[in-house]
Amino acid sequence: MSSIPRNQWYVAAYSSEIGQDLFSRTICGEPILFWRTRSGQVTAVPDRCVHRRFPLSQAPSRLVDDQVVCGYHGFTYGADGKCVFVPGQSRIPRTARLLPYPLVEQDSFVWVFIGDAAKADVSSIPRAPYLASPAYTTVAGMEPLQARFSLLVDNLLDLSHETYLHGGYIGTPEVAETPITTEVDDDAGIVYVSRHMDDAECPPFYAKSTGLQGRISRWQDIEYTPPCLYKLHSRIAPVGSVPNPDGSDPDAFHVEVVYAITPETEHSTHDFWSVARDFALGDEEVSKFLAENNRTVVLQDVEALNVLEGVVSAEPAGYQELSINIDTGGLAARRLLQRQLAQQPTSAAIS
Amino acid sequence: MSSIPRNQWYVAAYSSEIGQDLFSRTICGEPILFWRTRSGQVTAVPDRCVHRRFPLSQAPSRLVDDQVVCGYHGFTYGADGKCVFVPGQSRIPRTARLLPYPLVEQDSFVWVFIGDAAKADVSSIPRAPYLASPAYTTVAGMEPLQARFSLLVDNLLDLSHETYLHGGYIGTPEVAETPITTEVDDDAGIVYVSRHMDDAECPPFYAKSTGLQGRISRWQDIEYTPPCLYKLHSRIAPVGSVPNPDGSDPDAFHVEVVYAITPETEHSTHDFWSVARDFALGDEEVSKFLAENNRTVVLQDVEALNVLEGVVSAEPAGYQELSINIDTGGLAARRLLQRQLAQQPTSAAIS
Amino acid sequence: MSSIPRNQWYVAAYSSEIGQDLFSRTICGEPILFWRTRSGQVTAVPDRCVHRRFPLSQAPSRLVDDQVVCGYHGFTYGADGKCVFVPGQSRIPRTARLLPYPLVEQDSFVWVFIGDAAKADVSSIPRAPYLASPAYTTVAGMEPLQARFSLLVDNLLDLSHETYLHGGYIGTPEVAETPITTEVDDDAGIVYVSRHMDDAECPPFYAKSTGLQGRISRWQDIEYTPPCLYKLHSRIAPVGSVPNPDGSDPDAFHVEVVYAITPETEHSTHDFWSVARDFALGDEEVSKFLAENNRTVVLQDVEALNVLEGVVSAEPAGYQELSINIDTGGLAARRLLQRQLAQQPTSAAIS
Repeated sequence: MSSIPRNQWYVAAYSSEIGQDLFSRTICGEPILFWRTRSGQVTAVPDRCVHRRFPLSQAPSRLVDDQVVCGYHGFTYGADGKCVFVPGQSRIPRTARLLPYPLVEQDSFVWVFIGDAAKADVSSIPRAPYLASPAYTTVAGMEPLQARFSLLVDNLLDLSHETYLHGGYIGTPEVAETPITTEVDDDAGIVYVSRHMDDAECPPFYAKSTGLQGRISRWQDIEYTPPCLYKLHSRIAPVGSVPNPDGSDPDAFHVEVVYAITPETEHSTHDFWSVARDFALGDEEVSKFLAENNRTVVLQDVEALNVLEGVVSAEPAGYQELSINIDTGGLAARRLLQRQLAQQPTSAAIS
Repeated sequence: MSSIPRNQWYVAAYSSEIGQDLFSRTICGEPILFWRTRSGQVTAVPDRCVHRRFPLSQAPSRLVDDQVVCGYHGFTYGADGKCVFVPGQSRIPRTARLLPYPLVEQDSFVWVFIGDAAKADVSSIPRAPYLASPAYTTVAGMEPLQARFSLLVDNLLDLSHETYLHGGYIGTPEVAETPITTEVDDDAGIVYVSRHMDDAECPPFYAKSTGLQGRISRWQDIEYTPPCLYKLHSRIAPVGSVPNPDGSDPDAFHVEVVYAITPETEHSTHDFWSVARDFALGDEEVSKFLAENNRTVVLQDVEALNVLEGVVSAEPAGYQELSINIDTGGLAARRLLQRQLAQQPTSAAIS
Repeated sequence: MSSIPRNQWYVAAYSSEIGQDLFSRTICGEPILFWRTRSGQVTAVPDRCVHRRFPLSQAPSRLVDDQVVCGYHGFTYGADGKCVFVPGQSRIPRTARLLPYPLVEQDSFVWVFIGDAAKADVSSIPRAPYLASPAYTTVAGMEPLQARFSLLVDNLLDLSHETYLHGGYIGTPEVAETPITTEVDDDAGIVYVSRHMDDAECPPFYAKSTGLQGRISRWQDIEYTPPCLYKLHSRIAPVGSVPNPDGSDPDAFHVEVVYAITPETEHSTHDFWSVARDFALGDEEVSKFLAENNRTVVLQDVEALNVLEGVVSAEPAGYQELSINIDTGGLAARRLLQRQLAQQPTSAAIS
């Protein structure tokens, strides 16, 4: 029984990762081959020759004029997945084709649809427009996680862990102390978790990037659209500052922290992280600081979750966790994920 | 189906291993957290936060004033396992507690009871008083074994292997040649195996430590209390020497070799070894020699048993061994272990 | 359910590998101990003491005067597998014996029969006489493959892959382009695959070893006797040259490429390769070139098949391949292997 919802859109890569080279990544247990054609379009097909399964990303497989040539027996496919050459005969079997994945490039990401392509609805892909907006400067990365994706969902939905796991980086005592409010939009399939700290210590992550001194007003507004897209709207301002009635907020600094949580297999995850800011635009020093600092924080999570994966894998069936108020968002996320799992007809475990 | 008896006492550590630091060791598949409070008492609780399972021994978890603070979300526990702090709320759930393991410090060991704590009977812990007696000088160590504990039980109950696996260290031809006598005390649950060699070559282990020259009288009297404690009463004396009728034995050298055989998992074992002697008390040179020599011998066993574990794991079900006279003690030990396994209601395999 | 046919002969080693030393190799999941007695005979017995399973090839086990002494407790066996010594008693149990494997040294190979020894028919062992004939000079080697043996069978039965995987070594465009003819001798249990290229580029492997310049006539005649022996009769000649009616063929160069495909386990294989030629006899430089070049080609296969094993192991059950004309030989080989599997009463998977 898989724990990964199918018939869903997942972030497979950053657009910047895909060039005119063969690029392979396993998404939800499926090895997928990507390349960008000379006309700029991204192609996504199974990374496995239909003949004898050889990975089309594996040398001596190669890209020749927008076509991929299998390195084992020379089967050749176009960007549409259709086979155009087989060895030893001129007739090409009708079934010799790679079925392309539905694919959308949007908001700096390459999204693919995993499941029944007929159910792929582009309008259902959640948005993170700041990541590709000139009004923001963004730093980003991806860290491989040797843990099931649900452990990362738990982690991100409950930011009280910042105080302990990320103390000295983004955590301060107020994060763990301040209660949260949680809302679920069942129709839209979104979990909202908010924590507004009106008078809090400013952690180095924000002090150094904003230049703010002294205590701050710090708001964390989470918006998670299962399974893949997690957005943290972070607002940092002097104590007492609030947005104007018209929504403008000139005294505050806004950071949009976005995670795409993409299962690689049942027990490993691609942890895509982006940090977009509406201040110090184009300032390389600030960009470098935020990139290094956020990567350090992500790697603290990776280390902890890799350990947790080992714990969960080894424990006897039926182990009970204890949940408290801080887990309200995480439990809501689990419920939405369960609903997505229940909607699919059958689901086999993915190794 | 586990092969590890539950509702039994096991050696978890030497007392000297546990200080005012977090110390984690897996015993019978259960990760256990130990620390010594400032008042000197040793605490043993599950090494897993009740909230989201984070190991309490894993940084940034830490000990603060006899309390352990989870490094993930800050759950804090006292030495009695009771939770005293959770993040984001002042009410602490009643069920937020780590259930302490029954624990006894005795004879240089930290013993824990694995199973139903209500069945823990301290008086049933087997004794090895020489290990902490001023009348003896003891050297000790622990080697991790990547093999099921029953292979070490087999090994230690049949010392004829000393001649082959430990030749040049503690083995001589007489060990393999001399028949054994075996007795089982079914009520006490103890296996006794004796081999008395009246005229034997003196192996380097005893020649260098005792200073005896020429051939010796060498007695090996084994006393094994399944599952965990193995004692070898070794008597080395000039040929012809026997104890006096009153039990005194001034011409002989006595070495008490003690093994605590503690399963880590179904397929790995903590191999605790101690060598206590009633001669050359406090002589550092003799201590150093015996420690190095015995460790070498233990590592010879470890290497052989690690290989055997691979053989046993790979072999088809139903493989038959051939047992002969030398195996009488080992077969009796297996029978007592089987009886202990049969006494427990259910037993799940431990990974 | 094993995919390895039992009651079959398999190549276990080259004769040259077995000397007066203990030599262990796992064949079809069974660890087998080999040594050559002082009279020159090769012995093959299970590599596991009947007493407590210790591998007889594992130090301190050793060979003493044509007898093997177990390094754990000293059980000693003669070359016929019969136990001649046990520790602690003079009576040797009647069942204390290692059952020898049927064994034949032939054509440079040591063949063993895996299965019910009563069914071992020496006359059914397929022959490759050139490998030990003075009319040929032979180079040979063995590469360990971390893939199931059937992937190597697929690989060798369809040489069109030479064009892609081995381009620049033994592949040229004509191999993939030229259709094959396939025949199956169901009674003898042999698959024949032929590809005759009348006007082809000469790859470096043959150009440098024969000295032929310009284009060539290149014949590939495969003869595979499942499960273990694969022979490629390779004929290289100037374009237009054909054998004489009496079978003599003075203008051609003949290379007999032989593979013995021996399962080590369900998922690993011993890939024995030999290249025998009827020209440049004894020429060390040609021998060195052919050995290095063929080993390079074999390692290209090994790398590709190791990747394929990973793909096949991870894929969901029921994945369908697409077969075309070039696969006729491989499919016939699979059918004969299935027939061999069906002939055996029961078959357990081998780890």
